[in-house]
Amino acid sequence: MDVGIVGGSGYGGGELLRLLAAHPALKVRAVAAGGASGRDLAAVSPQLGRGGQLVPATPDALAGCELVLLATPDDVSLALAPALRAAGSAVIDLSAAFRLGAEGWTAWYGGIHPAPELVPAPYGLPELFRDELTGAGLVANPGCYATAALLALAPLAGMVDAASVVVSGLSGTSGAGKGLREDLHASHVLGNMAPYASPGHRHTGEIEQAWRRLTGTPARVTFTPHLVPLSRGLLCTAVADLACDASAAAVREAYADAYDGETFVTLLEEGTWPQTAYVRGANTAHVAVAVDARTRRVTAACAIDNLGKGAAGQALQNANLVAGLPEATGLPTAALYP
Amino acid sequence: MDVGIVGGSGYGGGELLRLLAAHPALKVRAVAAGGASGRDLAAVSPQLGRGGQLVPATPDALAGCELVLLATPDDVSLALAPALRAAGSAVIDLSAAFRLGAEGWTAWYGGIHPAPELVPAPYGLPELFRDELTGAGLVANPGCYATAALLALAPLAGMVDAASVVVSGLSGTSGAGKGLREDLHASHVLGNMAPYASPGHRHTGEIEQAWRRLTGTPARVTFTPHLVPLSRGLLCTAVADLACDASAAAVREAYADAYDGETFVTLLEEGTWPQTAYVRGANTAHVAVAVDARTRRVTAACAIDNLGKGAAGQALQNANLVAGLPEATGLPTAALYP
Amino acid sequence: MDVGIVGGSGYGGGELLRLLAAHPALKVRAVAAGGASGRDLAAVSPQLGRGGQLVPATPDALAGCELVLLATPDDVSLALAPALRAAGSAVIDLSAAFRLGAEGWTAWYGGIHPAPELVPAPYGLPELFRDELTGAGLVANPGCYATAALLALAPLAGMVDAASVVVSGLSGTSGAGKGLREDLHASHVLGNMAPYASPGHRHTGEIEQAWRRLTGTPARVTFTPHLVPLSRGLLCTAVADLACDASAAAVREAYADAYDGETFVTLLEEGTWPQTAYVRGANTAHVAVAVDARTRRVTAACAIDNLGKGAAGQALQNANLVAGLPEATGLPTAALYP
Amino acid sequence: MDVGIVGGSGYGGGELLRLLAAHPALKVRAVAAGGASGRDLAAVSPQLGRGGQLVPATPDALAGCELVLLATPDDVSLALAPALRAAGSAVIDLSAAFRLGAEGWTAWYGGIHPAPELVPAPYGLPELFRDELTGAGLVANPGCYATAALLALAPLAGMVDAASVVVSGLSGTSGAGKGLREDLHASHVLGNMAPYASPGHRHTGEIEQAWRRLTGTPARVTFTPHLVPLSRGLLCTAVADLACDASAAAVREAYADAYDGETFVTLLEEGTWPQTAYVRGANTAHVAVAVDARTRRVTAACAIDNLGKGAAGQALQNANLVAGLPEATGLPTAALYP
Repeated sequence: MDVGIVGGSGYGGGELLRLLAAHPALKVRAVAAGGASGRDLAAVSPQLGRGGQLVPATPDALAGCELVLLATPDDVSLALAPALRAAGSAVIDLSAAFRLGAEGWTAWYGGIHPAPELVPAPYGLPELFRDELTGAGLVANPGCYATAALLALAPLAGMVDAASVVVSGLSGTSGAGKGLREDLHASHVLGNMAPYASPGHRHTGEIEQAWRRLTGTPARVTFTPHLVPLSRGLLCTAVADLACDASAAAVREAYADAYDGETFVTLLEEGTWPQTAYVRGANTAHVAVAVDARTRRVTAACAIDNLGKGAAGQALQNANLVAGLPEATGLPTAALYP
Repeated sequence: MDVGIVGGSGYGGGELLRLLAAHPALKVRAVAAGGASGRDLAAVSPQLGRGGQLVPATPDALAGCELVLLATPDDVSLALAPALRAAGSAVIDLSAAFRLGAEGWTAWYGGIHPAPELVPAPYGLPELFRDELTGAGLVANPGCYATAALLALAPLAGMVDAASVVVSGLSGTSGAGKGLREDLHASHVLGNMAPYASPGHRHTGEIEQAWRRLTGTPARVTFTPHLVPLSRGLLCTAVADLACDASAAAVREAYADAYDGETFVTLLEEGTWPQTAYVRGANTAHVAVAVDARTRRVTAACAIDNLGKGAAGQALQNANLVAGLPEATGLPTAALYP
Repeated sequence: MDVGIVGGSGYGGGELLRLLAAHPALKVRAVAAGGASGRDLAAVSPQLGRGGQLVPATPDALAGCELVLLATPDDVSLALAPALRAAGSAVIDLSAAFRLGAEGWTAWYGGIHPAPELVPAPYGLPELFRDELTGAGLVANPGCYATAALLALAPLAGMVDAASVVVSGLSGTSGAGKGLREDLHASHVLGNMAPYASPGHRHTGEIEQAWRRLTGTPARVTFTPHLVPLSRGLLCTAVADLACDASAAAVREAYADAYDGETFVTLLEEGTWPQTAYVRGANTAHVAVAVDARTRRVTAACAIDNLGKGAAGQALQNANLVAGLPEATGLPTAALYP
Repeated sequence: MDVGIVGGSGYGGGELLRLLAAHPALKVRAVAAGGASGRDLAAVSPQLGRGGQLVPATPDALAGCELVLLATPDDVSLALAPALRAAGSAVIDLSAAFRLGAEGWTAWYGGIHPAPELVPAPYGLPELFRDELTGAGLVANPGCYATAALLALAPLAGMVDAASVVVSGLSGTSGAGKGLREDLHASHVLGNMAPYASPGHRHTGEIEQAWRRLTGTPARVTFTPHLVPLSRGLLCTAVADLACDASAAAVREAYADAYDGETFVTLLEEGTWPQTAYVRGANTAHVAVAVDARTRRVTAACAIDNLGKGAAGQALQNANLVAGLPEATGLPTAALYP
């Protein structure tokens, strides 16, 4: 299947290209970029070990691509996706453009969604929403924090007070992209850590929407992201009050039920917590859960690579589903360690 | 005043010596160590720029020290502190040995406390317990996480549901000390982050005990520490449900009331979150708070240097109080940046 | 082809397993370890996303493996390799055991080499010694520093004063392996850099021996390695006096001649220097060279991943040659960035 | 003595302010900045723990300052220093503006020096040029690399072939300043290292000029700087051919002679190499030297904090000399470790 990448000069686009280099069935036909359009990929992204002229981010330049992956800002995705769909391409969008329903968009991103008929698009977290993804025409690839938070929380449906959820997120800097900013200057980042965008980080909306879709009940989530001095890696630690009748054994069993057959989710043994170093570069999530009898609270954590299972890896997992391929085709489960 | 340092070859002891080199009134008379006893300080700790033979960690070797700072494991402190007190020295203990009451010790550390008459010792967090520290004979220097969590939370007394407190802690590796461990091996740590010791990290007991002493009411705290790839720096982010009648303005005012006159606590402007890079090497804490009208929750965060305000710096702040010196004598408020 | 890995619980062994997971023709039949023998690979190396019991590092346990990769200390390789050869397995040894001739072994490692008839084994740097590797029975996989230094220097044969070579090496910590050491403690490493093992690091012997074999003339190399705070990545910067008649254009042409057809070596454009971030996780080397007309010296640099082209990646490149496969089979040229 | 700081919002200016906060005799009267002029220091540099309005970088705004420290770009220093001198202030310039003679300026920086009568100004490396600094009116504070390279090399005068000097420099990112650049973006820097500005980094000119002034003979230096992923710290490793008759003992003795009485230079024991972690935040240099009998070469290394002994610390050491104070007044020799 011929695929196109838009945003090929960015971190997400680069990771798509790295992973596609080892994919047996999806072939890169066009790589598009904005400002870097016209330049050679080998000069823009020396790490890829391949060249080829970057084409403009237009439907014309992507003609012939049966599947297009958009690793682009929200506004670019909002403009491109409908046109690409109209031209017959399937689209997997890594931005936030199509994740929330129209009401949620207004609440978390502001303004009126320009394509309300397309949202919420099928939400590309296969372990939780696999049914709606197979053969989908437009997939909204989840946010990195939302992926980790939801994989940590989802098995708790029905077992916790959904109004009590508190999530702490820790992310490496690559999640913030390539754009230069003072708070991403190396001298500042090395040896630093800090919360940001709290309260009200937009991934909160995704987490709450997905919880409601999974459980039929609303959640009240407080999510605090932190920037830490590493490039790749994302961790969410979630705490919630147990519903009165949920036992520790039942909690553990729910996680086993949820993830035992999943290629890309590893449930860690009791007493072990996820480490991002063990998922670097892979499409895997490490999940752990513990119940504290003293406080009657449950703590669950999930580690992913923000560019892997948190972005490009998951996008290709969705691409496999869209293309009718086995879901794990061509995706690494062994991480780059150390 | 002549002071002795025990644990002079460790990270905490080294930071005490670094800070004392610039202190105008406290003079280092003896530096004691365990395994490194007999060696020269210049060989053990080349960063200090000074030599001198390390003496054994015994009361005899510390005779003549009017004040002794113990940067030692719990068991060493438990053995030494009573003997030093009996010999007439004031003692500031950086370990956990004397922080909790006898009951709390049993609950969080196990077994019977060997010196129940000494615990809880005056708790060396001057901004919250200043009255009991001036002229004290034995001071229990707080845990690094407890310091940050309590500075973040204390002004909320009476304004939040104390049963709803969730704290996320992030710490650099120096908090774990000099001992070699697989999870502190550089290749593993660089690019890694992970929760640990959850649920039930022992600093939880300190936080809950201090809250009870400050407010007269119990708290239920879930605390999850995380290890992140930097050497120095500690951050706590706390979330709690607002009591129904607390306004955002009242919350903000409570923080201003608590910290406006404090030399070592800076309350950040609204919308700004603390960054550990801004307190590295200083005895300062940066604190911020935000109220989320949507969830009716408050998020508060505090950044410190785990070896500064989280250990050695705070110990010297207590030493000043014990010695009857102005509390800020000789302590840096300018941080090493970047 | 069935392959066995010895040292499967270490960093080199782990990288072999990560890369072999994506290799279409080499199948892992047995993974052996020393102390970890009997344990499950999934517990020892959670990052690999696969299990399987670790077998003992004995020829019996490796019976049936047509090719065995030894990611082991020198002494283990010295003991195992002859036995495996006798049992009919081809062997690629990642240790230093078979790199130097008997005389060089004595000079750099001390004592008498126990298997002088096997050394120097074919030296597994395909870009320089490809002819002797195809179909070889025992391959000595080069040291990480030697790989980078030689790729930087080799095209200069005949153009520089070989008595003037000075090489500076920079390596991440994974090159030092998994063993716990004070100088590899995270708190010490983060924010630190230092030379070590100078003068006289053993890879110097490899560099000089290879130069002599390539050019027929001896070299006098001073090599200073440095430890820097990253996990993966290795850089060598070499400086040498130009021979009087060598022009800058001729130097550049020599590099182009040497590397233009090489899959795994990229010669960078003039004015661009190699960055280890662009080769992380890949089997690639980035090489650059510049002539300084003022000093009549040439500076050449090479960046590799010390566990990739510097160890496991190169070992599989050699495995392809030994097995008669196309040399690049299954090896990544796209790096994990950032 | 009243001092002014220009460039107070930058890294060098910030370090000057941090160190001056603990200085007993030099009082900060004015802090000037370019773009940040008019803003409050507490907002621009939250790590300093002090406020005060930033004044413009003009002689008028600095009137009354007996001593002005310029932590500014070359062109700003070129414009300000003559005016400040004319107004009667002593000036210590941390830029390169006044380090080289007029001829050297043209060779390394290009163009005609606008104030040839002021260059070369007394070169502020007290351990080598102390005599010309006491009471000087204008001091050229050395480059960070030049400081480390010269402290490593200077004792070798007369013992090595000065045409054979090769220096490798490794620096943290803070040496490149606060300006945003792609190669200083945290995601790129974390886990990366690379040479840059080679051949021909401008500090080469300083090293060669100082060598000529110290020895009366020219040197031919090849210097290659590298960027490594830490914020503070700088290391130079220098290699040179021994002059035929220099013994290892004589080399070692020369270093002892040079540095035994120096407060800020520590000569390490044989077999020990300098580590930047041991000088972080201090005004100290750690120096080591080794002779290789095999190659008849000497390797010498020096570690400093690029913002300490490599910039602000050394500037205050010079300020003490200019002001007639004991040279070590108020400067830390204990480093922030780990």
